[in-house]
Amino acid sequence: MLNIGILGCGRIGQVHARSISQIDAARVTAVADAFVEPAEALAANTGAQVLSPEALIASADVDAVIIGTPTDTHFDLIHAAAQAGKAIFCEKPVDMSADRIRTCMAMVEAAGVPFMTAFNRRFDPNFAALHARIMQGDIGDVEIVTILSRDPAPPPLSYIKSSGGIFRDMMIHDLDMARFLLGAEPVSVYAVGAALVDPDIGVVGDVDTAAVTLSTACGKICQISNSRRATYGYDQRIEVHGSKGLLRAENMLENTVEIATHHGFQKAPAQHFFLERYAAAYRAELGHFVKSVAAGEPILPGIRDGLHAQVLADAAAQSLAENTVIKIA
Amino acid sequence: MLNIGILGCGRIGQVHARSISQIDAARVTAVADAFVEPAEALAANTGAQVLSPEALIASADVDAVIIGTPTDTHFDLIHAAAQAGKAIFCEKPVDMSADRIRTCMAMVEAAGVPFMTAFNRRFDPNFAALHARIMQGDIGDVEIVTILSRDPAPPPLSYIKSSGGIFRDMMIHDLDMARFLLGAEPVSVYAVGAALVDPDIGVVGDVDTAAVTLSTACGKICQISNSRRATYGYDQRIEVHGSKGLLRAENMLENTVEIATHHGFQKAPAQHFFLERYAAAYRAELGHFVKSVAAGEPILPGIRDGLHAQVLADAAAQSLAENTVIKIA
Amino acid sequence: MLNIGILGCGRIGQVHARSISQIDAARVTAVADAFVEPAEALAANTGAQVLSPEALIASADVDAVIIGTPTDTHFDLIHAAAQAGKAIFCEKPVDMSADRIRTCMAMVEAAGVPFMTAFNRRFDPNFAALHARIMQGDIGDVEIVTILSRDPAPPPLSYIKSSGGIFRDMMIHDLDMARFLLGAEPVSVYAVGAALVDPDIGVVGDVDTAAVTLSTACGKICQISNSRRATYGYDQRIEVHGSKGLLRAENMLENTVEIATHHGFQKAPAQHFFLERYAAAYRAELGHFVKSVAAGEPILPGIRDGLHAQVLADAAAQSLAENTVIKIA
Amino acid sequence: MLNIGILGCGRIGQVHARSISQIDAARVTAVADAFVEPAEALAANTGAQVLSPEALIASADVDAVIIGTPTDTHFDLIHAAAQAGKAIFCEKPVDMSADRIRTCMAMVEAAGVPFMTAFNRRFDPNFAALHARIMQGDIGDVEIVTILSRDPAPPPLSYIKSSGGIFRDMMIHDLDMARFLLGAEPVSVYAVGAALVDPDIGVVGDVDTAAVTLSTACGKICQISNSRRATYGYDQRIEVHGSKGLLRAENMLENTVEIATHHGFQKAPAQHFFLERYAAAYRAELGHFVKSVAAGEPILPGIRDGLHAQVLADAAAQSLAENTVIKIA
Repeated sequence: MLNIGILGCGRIGQVHARSISQIDAARVTAVADAFVEPAEALAANTGAQVLSPEALIASADVDAVIIGTPTDTHFDLIHAAAQAGKAIFCEKPVDMSADRIRTCMAMVEAAGVPFMTAFNRRFDPNFAALHARIMQGDIGDVEIVTILSRDPAPPPLSYIKSSGGIFRDMMIHDLDMARFLLGAEPVSVYAVGAALVDPDIGVVGDVDTAAVTLSTACGKICQISNSRRATYGYDQRIEVHGSKGLLRAENMLENTVEIATHHGFQKAPAQHFFLERYAAAYRAELGHFVKSVAAGEPILPGIRDGLHAQVLADAAAQSLAENTVIKIA
Repeated sequence: MLNIGILGCGRIGQVHARSISQIDAARVTAVADAFVEPAEALAANTGAQVLSPEALIASADVDAVIIGTPTDTHFDLIHAAAQAGKAIFCEKPVDMSADRIRTCMAMVEAAGVPFMTAFNRRFDPNFAALHARIMQGDIGDVEIVTILSRDPAPPPLSYIKSSGGIFRDMMIHDLDMARFLLGAEPVSVYAVGAALVDPDIGVVGDVDTAAVTLSTACGKICQISNSRRATYGYDQRIEVHGSKGLLRAENMLENTVEIATHHGFQKAPAQHFFLERYAAAYRAELGHFVKSVAAGEPILPGIRDGLHAQVLADAAAQSLAENTVIKIA
Repeated sequence: MLNIGILGCGRIGQVHARSISQIDAARVTAVADAFVEPAEALAANTGAQVLSPEALIASADVDAVIIGTPTDTHFDLIHAAAQAGKAIFCEKPVDMSADRIRTCMAMVEAAGVPFMTAFNRRFDPNFAALHARIMQGDIGDVEIVTILSRDPAPPPLSYIKSSGGIFRDMMIHDLDMARFLLGAEPVSVYAVGAALVDPDIGVVGDVDTAAVTLSTACGKICQISNSRRATYGYDQRIEVHGSKGLLRAENMLENTVEIATHHGFQKAPAQHFFLERYAAAYRAELGHFVKSVAAGEPILPGIRDGLHAQVLADAAAQSLAENTVIKIA
Repeated sequence: MLNIGILGCGRIGQVHARSISQIDAARVTAVADAFVEPAEALAANTGAQVLSPEALIASADVDAVIIGTPTDTHFDLIHAAAQAGKAIFCEKPVDMSADRIRTCMAMVEAAGVPFMTAFNRRFDPNFAALHARIMQGDIGDVEIVTILSRDPAPPPLSYIKSSGGIFRDMMIHDLDMARFLLGAEPVSVYAVGAALVDPDIGVVGDVDTAAVTLSTACGKICQISNSRRATYGYDQRIEVHGSKGLLRAENMLENTVEIATHHGFQKAPAQHFFLERYAAAYRAELGHFVKSVAAGEPILPGIRDGLHAQVLADAAAQSLAENTVIKIA
């Protein structure tokens, strides 16, 4: 039985608590939050005790921590948890600064604690099945990865101001997916983008429509496009072209019903947003964490994956700002 | 809070217990089974007490019963539960004899207790969405209903011997769906069938491949086909042709991944069988029961629906045996 | 070079003339029609001469005749063409009376001339591909055939009055397809139907919505449904369930474009009607006729196929009229 | 009646001759080729006379010329035809040098003759329908265009050596499509690419796998990817994301048949290559040319479109060579 302490009792902490309730080999023993109310609510639902973050990390009843607090608190919590020898499950991004992630990586490696960066999409059953088929050679060598990722609507401007921008808060998932599927590190990054959805997003220095091209040393290519708007639901599609064939994962629709009229054949919209679309992924990623910690096996995606994705997001932001191609060392 | 007693702790009882664990307004307070082990296992999982069926039905801690025991025990349990004033959720078929269902109906109506026949497919999100579109007039008047329903593999011969045969154990779901979608009672039934999957099924007096045609007084038509075999997963499709258009609900596949090679474009098989395919339907039907009982609202499908489906199944069996068209009074 | 005379210069005669213009090994040398204008128009387009039907059949410049005249003239034209030793391509139905088709069959067999009944759908590239996959064993033994066939709108009442009704003018194509795909002769026929689209169709003694069940001696089943109405284009779908898998041929849509909005994902309507949908089939069936005549090979579908389809259509009409199951001798 | 002279009797000249045979308002009156045999063969098929290119252009029996000769002859033929006052239909690319296309444009405009650049894909019924829906505002403002274009197999190395490379011989179609769909001129071009299919293509200085990003002054984005290999047929897909929705045009498959087995649900491969896939487009583009010339209406795509596509292809080649972003003046 893995005893888990949840740091941060907001929406994502609650999602993880629900996932844990469906895993026989784990339970929530403690929760912590800067605010009393969400902490007590989550404690009531899980039977866990409410502690301060420090006490939670120090508790003998906690084997592993889930860090679901604001990004700027991750660094200190990782430091403390690593010092305390706890296994760490950390929401992305690990930190807004790649250099600080490097410091975290050193701390985690020095402490020898398991660490998982929560790139949940790797655990989506569709994308996981697609990846498995690549790994078993069904399409030969990967040549071109195409990722189409669009949110139904932009987040509040207040969020965008502090999120690090579209490359760091939204495309970072696609950048990790690109690395996951390419099977090789990108060495060049080129980004374009504009504020087409909401000019106010441009006013605060970000874009809402963006495209990035990655290429690897061996010539593999990835094209990603993002929009903060999609009228037809949460658009999450991936395709991978290889030497022997093509794999693609389509959207999940609200249901399988099709209506035919003189307008044509119409299916339902895509599932609305990430909580529906990635419900299974959230459960699976935590199952993977619990199983890997219990078995003492290495965990992917690890802190190094968190670092690489951040480096690519930084490069994309720089490429857009300077309108030039950025080389990755 | 609705206190529920579960009669029958086998697979379906466990499914319902899991559903109840996700419903805030209900909990399992007691369980009963002819065997000790499954009863104690379910009690351990739910925190309920193990009682005899009689004690469970009599218990003041039980507001409603779920009857998931073998079919030949339903009659007595319905009788006892109705007498005790409990709300009843009963697995299909209510009874193997339409006449005995009529007696149950009289008992239930005399007692004035809520009764739901567990035709779970009405609560499948796809079929429910299809039905909702019919009800809001999206395809005008219903004219032709086509139901394609195929199991991945036949059940054991021992099951078939006591199940009442393909029309009563398998097609009964489709017969209820036909009534649900036609919006009118069938007045004639014609069935054909043969043992094409396994000759031993023929030896025990049943068929494994069957088709039925229903027609209503106003000329609406339903065609159903069943097979005890489908190499590509659990095949569960419905389409409804109306005066203004066509609605169809397609299979749910294992995932959304498609691979393209020189063989063509290949998607995943259909979800394997009913536990996967109707997972959401099982949750939704119990949610509907709990909500309706709590609100004191009439519940559909009721015992009358259980009766009508059984009458159609009996007519189909008779039609096949006599190779003639059967009129429904 | 096969010299072809076209008897009947209406729409279908023109379709065949166009097909011949794309076949290197054939040409139209003569045309005939009860009316001067269409005959001269087709002659002008093809470079053929206008002759009387008798002269056309007698002409040394004619090796084969296409009979595309009204059904009640087929018998005499077949007789004359067989006597004259011409290869015969005859539109369906060969005749409205099965007995008269039997007489035609005797005449044709006595004369030893090639004869093709124009069941064009067997040559549709989709249905032909589906049939080819059955023949190469891809789905094992055929068990259940499902045919969904709906016209976009009913024909004029005047046509229905003389067409022999829905089973003989419309479903006959599906009945031939059933025989083609079942690979065994149906031995029982059951039909239901009603006038749901237009009550006036009922007034003249026909139905516009109908469903038929066929079964073979070995237990194979075919379910067909027809409607004289489909708001979404010409609905022409077939599926075949076998011991090893399922084959289905979907509708051909107007184009491959899909639009996604908050309503969902919408594709184009189905191609409007038979001239678009079966354009390739019309070309292919005539190519098959020319090639088979040239090679002296047996031609399928032959006159026996024309007969069997008519017998099934007659049985369906009788079944509906008598509300009973009809046995085929 | 438009009298057309065909310059170049190779494969593409033959395709256009067949299209003309289906257009009532046009006919082929003369053909010319550097070789006797193909010219005489095409003359025999069309009833046209064989002339020298000079005589054809000078002929009073020729109103319009189709230029389907090798690219390096286009310049002189355009010059001569413009001088002779003939309408010109010219295969792409107009010339390998953008500067020489500018000279052609001046000649054509000075002569005032109609000129069409044969970007046939604009006339594909699917892409034309997609474009029409954009123009009628169905998806609002265009924001992101994604073009996936892959040939089934690479052309011979000999072709690649003289074709100008993948951007000028293959992607030029996609670059024209990008301009067609974006509705605004790209101002920046970035290309990546590698020889992943055949290292020999790299040896002769080209790539076989490439991706390009275009952006317009107003922030619209287009991502294109090309491969000289696709195991599943000719891959030709387009999608356009706009402020109100998404449009996509899928591949055309060989047929509509789907087979379901334990492997899943498999559809046919995509149509093999451009002659099948764009058969309707070839007919439609020539119909558009004939109709526009007859009506004296301006023709799109014109020579300016031929120029702009070439400028983009040149920029893509330069971007790849210099690994930098190229600005378009």
